[in-house]
Parts: sequence; structure tokens; C-alpha cells
Amino acid sequence: STPDSKDTLIRILNSQEANEIALALESLPIEQRTEAWKNVAQDQRLDILVEMRSDPRESLLDTMPIAELDSLFNNIAASDLIELADTLPARLLDRAVRAMDTLQRSYFEDAQQYSEDVAGRWIDHDVLVLPNNAKVRDALRLLRRQLPDYVDCIFITNRAGHFSEAIRISRVFGSPDHVPLVDLAEEDFSVINAQEDAVAAATKVQRSGFSALPVVGENGKLLGRLDIGNACELTQEYYENQLMASAGMNEDEDLFSPIVKSTKNRAIWLGINLLTAFLASWFIGLFEATLQQVVALAVLMPVVASMGGIAGSQTLTLIIRGLALNQINAANRNALLKKELSVGALNGIVWAFVIAIVASIWFDSAMIGVVIALAILANILAAAAAGVCIPVILDKLKLDPALSGAVVLTTVTDIVGFVAFLGLGTLLLL
Amino acid sequence: STPDSKDTLIRILNSQEANEIALALESLPIEQRTEAWKNVAQDQRLDILVEMRSDPRESLLDTMPIAELDSLFNNIAASDLIELADTLPARLLDRAVRAMDTLQRSYFEDAQQYSEDVAGRWIDHDVLVLPNNAKVRDALRLLRRQLPDYVDCIFITNRAGHFSEAIRISRVFGSPDHVPLVDLAEEDFSVINAQEDAVAAATKVQRSGFSALPVVGENGKLLGRLDIGNACELTQEYYENQLMASAGMNEDEDLFSPIVKSTKNRAIWLGINLLTAFLASWFIGLFEATLQQVVALAVLMPVVASMGGIAGSQTLTLIIRGLALNQINAANRNALLKKELSVGALNGIVWAFVIAIVASIWFDSAMIGVVIALAILANILAAAAAGVCIPVILDKLKLDPALSGAVVLTTVTDIVGFVAFLGLGTLLLL
Repeated sequence: STPDSKDTLIRILNSQEANEIALALESLPIEQRTEAWKNVAQDQRLDILVEMRSDPRESLLDTMPIAELDSLFNNIAASDLIELADTLPARLLDRAVRAMDTLQRSYFEDAQQYSEDVAGRWIDHDVLVLPNNAKVRDALRLLRRQLPDYVDCIFITNRAGHFSEAIRISRVFGSPDHVPLVDLAEEDFSVINAQEDAVAAATKVQRSGFSALPVVGENGKLLGRLDIGNACELTQEYYENQLMASAGMNEDEDLFSPIVKSTKNRAIWLGINLLTAFLASWFIGLFEATLQQVVALAVLMPVVASMGGIAGSQTLTLIIRGLALNQINAANRNALLKKELSVGALNGIVWAFVIAIVASIWFDSAMIGVVIALAILANILAAAAAGVCIPVILDKLKLDPALSGAVVLTTVTDIVGFVAFLGLGTLLLL
Repeated sequence: STPDSKDTLIRILNSQEANEIALALESLPIEQRTEAWKNVAQDQRLDILVEMRSDPRESLLDTMPIAELDSLFNNIAASDLIELADTLPARLLDRAVRAMDTLQRSYFEDAQQYSEDVAGRWIDHDVLVLPNNAKVRDALRLLRRQLPDYVDCIFITNRAGHFSEAIRISRVFGSPDHVPLVDLAEEDFSVINAQEDAVAAATKVQRSGFSALPVVGENGKLLGRLDIGNACELTQEYYENQLMASAGMNEDEDLFSPIVKSTKNRAIWLGINLLTAFLASWFIGLFEATLQQVVALAVLMPVVASMGGIAGSQTLTLIIRGLALNQINAANRNALLKKELSVGALNGIVWAFVIAIVASIWFDSAMIGVVIALAILANILAAAAAGVCIPVILDKLKLDPALSGAVVLTTVTDIVGFVAFLGLGTLLLL
């Protein structure tokens, strides 16, 4: 191994933070990763596995003998097992669940009732709870025990276990012992429903200014909380997913996933894009006769397709962000379309003019200039319309616009570009 | 205005959260936004402006008379003015600074010493500080006053004002009055340097498990803190920037920016891409004679270019994420290149075969199949190499790979694809 990889190994072993070690392990090729893993202290291993992406984590779990896994999962906390659940083979998951204590097992089973997309799956049970007749002195007694991270409120429940109020811990200190806690309750305190979208719930926590918000089930029963640490992780994973989705990949993709696995993951995306490329080719094929006579058209085709693709991706990206922030609705959709078409028209005219001049001079034909100018203008306008409509339609169909938006868009701009350019060429140049 | 836009207006006026109102205002076309703004309560306006992106914020500031702006900025807090500083015309900024109280003005001037990219710019001064001889009773007295959001530690400084220790508030409660606070200090507590990269510092806060970390200047002087709320905002802005950069746009882009402004913003990106498209065309032009004789090559060109572009963007995206997480280094670069080339070779062989069969049948020529198969394989391998090397080189040159990586990559895959395909065609088909 090179001196640099030794540096990474030393960094791994010296680092204190599970997250740092997880990132460093992920950055190693698989054999080196396995080697480094052997040197990681037993008592840090579970924390590190929980922090890792699922694909690289799997690469490590695969190398561990069953006895080691058993000791690793002995008395595992529900929230840790939830993180690991999707990578563990069913057999191992079963063993881990059976080795849990009763309380954690019930938390785990509750969490598994919810899908990965909703808040209920990511509940933390470390809450400070008091009944609604509790007084300041009860709160002070509660606060004397070790507090969990990210706690700034005590939650108050009624007899049925339903969430009723939240009391800022800082308000408790200044108050006399006998004051009922409900007198110190926060106004307008947000509550998360367990069936709420996880990213929306995380955003709610981040905006609240509080360190955690209560999560309630149907009927308002207090189930636990979502703290700002988990909220940050959820939103960050969401953004990473969006970035990876734009290339047809998954957030879990390992930097060093095994070659066959990685090839398979990516092949599907290449196949889908191949179909759209063949479709574009088929449209070009309709104009074979024209291309044979005016070969300049073949030379300039990429310019028409590229300008449409780029203009469209700008509109698309703006709309995808707007959809993610809930900023696109029936009220502003038409106004947005109008604005994007106006921007497209202006840029279309400017660039059509520039491209026309270059093409006319290059091929010594004014008519080539006219043909490409009209095609560019048409394609940029089509790109603007497609950039607004495609993500909105995909979103209505519950498809992720970040994943499939760009494929559909470039299919549209390729076909419109080629047909407009070669069609006009056939009409005006032959 | 439509019923839906009235709904938005009503939502704006009824919402309690400044952030919600900011998002709703951003989602309105400019005239409606200006109209809605008039109905927003005076005392909420500053908070809302601070939450907005700078472009839509500018659209509102432009409509407000100077007297109103003066009253808005009267006694503004340093952290709010820092957020607004880049949108305010110098004249207005000056007036606001002069109207600040002395302490806030000094905070503002300190923050302005730091660039937007470093932690020092985003310091919050709401810290709980005690000297290093303080005891538990001093801490309890301090805690009785109103606490800022996201506080879980008291910071201890020495006589020179240098940060020395952090004490968890929860540890203070259980301890007797006379215990020196330094006895309760946290071990391995992270500290942020004011000159540290802001996103790296934010990540440090998120990983620490604490609600805030101290920020120190040179010499270790305690300047303030970075709390998890601001840390989340910084990382989220970073991810949004990455998403927008992939289409050559800015995080500040307004959904409804004025048409001329928006056209200008986007024109530059279109122009850069036009240059690369013309470059690709120029390479195609070298093979005019071939294209004239074998028009099938013109028809199939998009397939070769598209497969290279897609394969390359997958590698590129994986590497860009790795760079952002500091996971790419001299030690694993070669191993990564080897792995990506292997994945490319496998996918190249599979898809070259599929495409060769389709092309041979379509154009009734086995040789066309051979030519496109070789070109596809060459282009996917080039894409893998480019996908690893381009972002690494851009990163070394301090250029943002998320912004320019895709342009450079598609230029490479277009040119390699066209030259390989048309060059092989010239050799084998003429």
C-alpha cells in the first residue's frame, strides 16, 4: 500500500468521531477497507456502521463472521437497527431483533410500521415527558438526570398519553417550585404527524427554532420526537439523493462498489438513454435524403440539439427546486410558463442571430443561416415549455422529476431540434 | 387575480412563520408579490426579508420608499444586516450601519472582515460565557435569564478572553453550588476557527452532537458561536448551489426574476455551451466527405455522443460527491480510475454489442455495426477517464466541478465520440 493510503489508515484509527471514520472507510478500495476495518476497535464498530452508506456498509458486513455480528448486534438500540435494517440479510436481522431488549424491540417494530419516507420511521424515544398536572419542581427533578442531545423542551401529555404542551427548559429555571408547568407552555408549538413526509417534517423542525418537535400518531398520542440532528441528516440525504438522481444513481452508491454490481446499477440508466437516443436517430433517419444533399446540416446538428438541451435544463432545474420547496402551484404555473417562454424568446433571438452569422459564413450560404436560426428559436421555445411542463407532470404522476426530468427533456429537445432543423432544411435548401 | 392566487395571499397573511411567508412571496409573480407585500405587517417585514433569497428580496426592496426602509433598518441586528448586505445598495447599507447601536455595529464590522465562504462571517454573538474561576452557582444564576435558541453549553474563557472549556448545561444541574465549572468540562470539544471554510465548519457542528460550537479568532480569542440552526442553513444553501450550478445558475435565482435580467443570467451559460457545440461541429466537419457517402453515420451520431455523455456524467457525479466529502485523495485516485474504467469497459462491451446489432439490421450492413461498436466502447472508456480526471483537475484549479464539470465532460465525450465514429467510418466504410 502507498504512503498515502497508510495516512488514511492512521487517520482512521486516530479519529474519535464515528462519522469521520465512516467517511474514511468509504474512501478506501474494498480490500484496503476490509483490512482497515480489522483494526477498528470493537466498541466503535456499531456506531461507524450506522454512519456509513448502505452499499459500503454491506461490503464490511459481508466479511464479518456470524459470531462477531451477533456480539455487535447484542442489545442494539432500535434507532440503530432501523438504520441497518435495509442492508442486513433477513436471517441476521431476525437474530438481531431476537437479541434486543423488550422495550427496544417494541420501538423497532413500531418504526417498521412506517415507510422510509415518513416521519414515524425516524422517531427518537429519548423524550422528557411529564403529566399535565406536573409543577416546576417536578421538572427540576427530571432535569437533574442525564439529558439526551438536542433537548430544549419538556413535553406534557394528558392521561391518554396525548401530547398537549411543550415547556422550554429555560423557562423552568426562573420560575418558583409550585407553578404548574402548563402555565409556562409555548404558544403555537408545531407538532409532527407520524405519517407526514419525513423531509417535510425535518424542514419543520429546522424552521421551528426548537431543538426537537414531538411526533404524534393518529389520535394525537405522543410517540417520540424528531430532533434537529436527525432533521439535518434527513434533509442532507434528500439533497444528495437529488444530486445522484440527476445521473440515474442512488445515494447509497459506493465509491468502490464491486465492478459487476456497479455495472448493473448503471446499465439500466444507459439503456433508458439509449432508447431515447435511438428515437432521436430515427427522426434524423427520416431526412436521409436531405442529409445526403446538404452535408452541412449533419455538421451543425449538434449545435441545434445542444442549445435546446442547455436552455431546457436551466428552466427544468429552476422548476425542480420550486417543486421541492412547494412553490409551484396552479396559481403561478401559467405565469411561470409565460415568463420562461419570454426568456426563451429573447435568448432564442439573440443566439439564433449569432449562430446564423457563424453558419452562413462557415458554409458560405445565407439560407443555411436562416434555417439554423429558425430551428434554434423553435427549439429554445420548446425547451422552455418542456422545462416547465415536464417536471410538473412527472410530479403529478408521483415520479421524481430530479431522476427522470432530464431524460424526458433532452428527448424532447433533441427531436424538436432535429426535426425543425432538418425539416426546414428540406423545405428551404433542396 | 385568480382564486388560487388569492389563496396564496391569504396563506401569506395568516402564516406565522417568517420562512413560510418568504417562500410564499417568492412563489408569486412580481406584481402580485409587490401587492401582497403591502399587506404584510410592518413588524414581520425584516424577518421575512432576511429569510428570502437575494433576487426576490431585491424585487421588494426596490419598491419601498426610503423612509420605510429607514424605519425597517432602524436598530437592525448585525446578523440580519449581514444577510441583507449583498442586496442593499451601498447608500442604503451606509444609512443602516449608521442607525445601528454601537455593539451591533462593531459585530457587523467584524463580520464584514470575513469573506462569505468562511465561518467568521456567520458568527452568532448570543453566547453564555463565564470566566475560568466560575462555580456552579454562577452558572445557575446565568441560566435564570432568557436563553437564546440552540444553547446546550456554557463556554469558559481565560483572562485574555481565549476559549478554554465547554460545560454542558445539563451537567450543571446535578452538581453542588461550590463546584468549579472547569471540573465539569467536556472532553474533546471541537472548536471552529473563524477562517475555516463555512460549510466545513457547519458540518463540524452537525457532527458534534452539540447545539453550537465556539468560533475563535487567531490566538484562540472567543468571537462567538455557530449554532446548529445556522449550520443547517449553510449546508442546505451549499447543496442548493450545487444543484443550481449544474445548470449554470445561481442559488439566488428568482422564480420570477425580470425577463431581461434572467435572459442575461442565462445567456452566458448558453454562450459557453455554444462554443463547445461549435467545437464538436468543427470536428464533424473534418469528415464531410465521409458523411456525404455514408449518411447512416449522420443518423447514428447522436447515439454515440449520448452514450458517452451519460456514462461520463455518472462517473462525474460520483466523483463530485466524493470531492465534496473530502473522500478523494492521492491514495485512492488511481484505484478509482481503474474501477471506473473497468465498469466502463464492461458496460461499453455490453452496449456496444446491443447497438451494433440494431445498427447492422437498421442499415443492413455488418460493417456499420463494427464501426459503431468500436466507437461506443472507445467513448465510454474516455467518458470514465474524463469523469474521474476532470473534476479532480477543476478542484485543484479551485474551479467548482459542479458548475463546469458537465460542460467540459460533454465536450470531451462529444469530440471523442464523433472523431472515433466518423474516423473509423472513414477507414472501414469507404
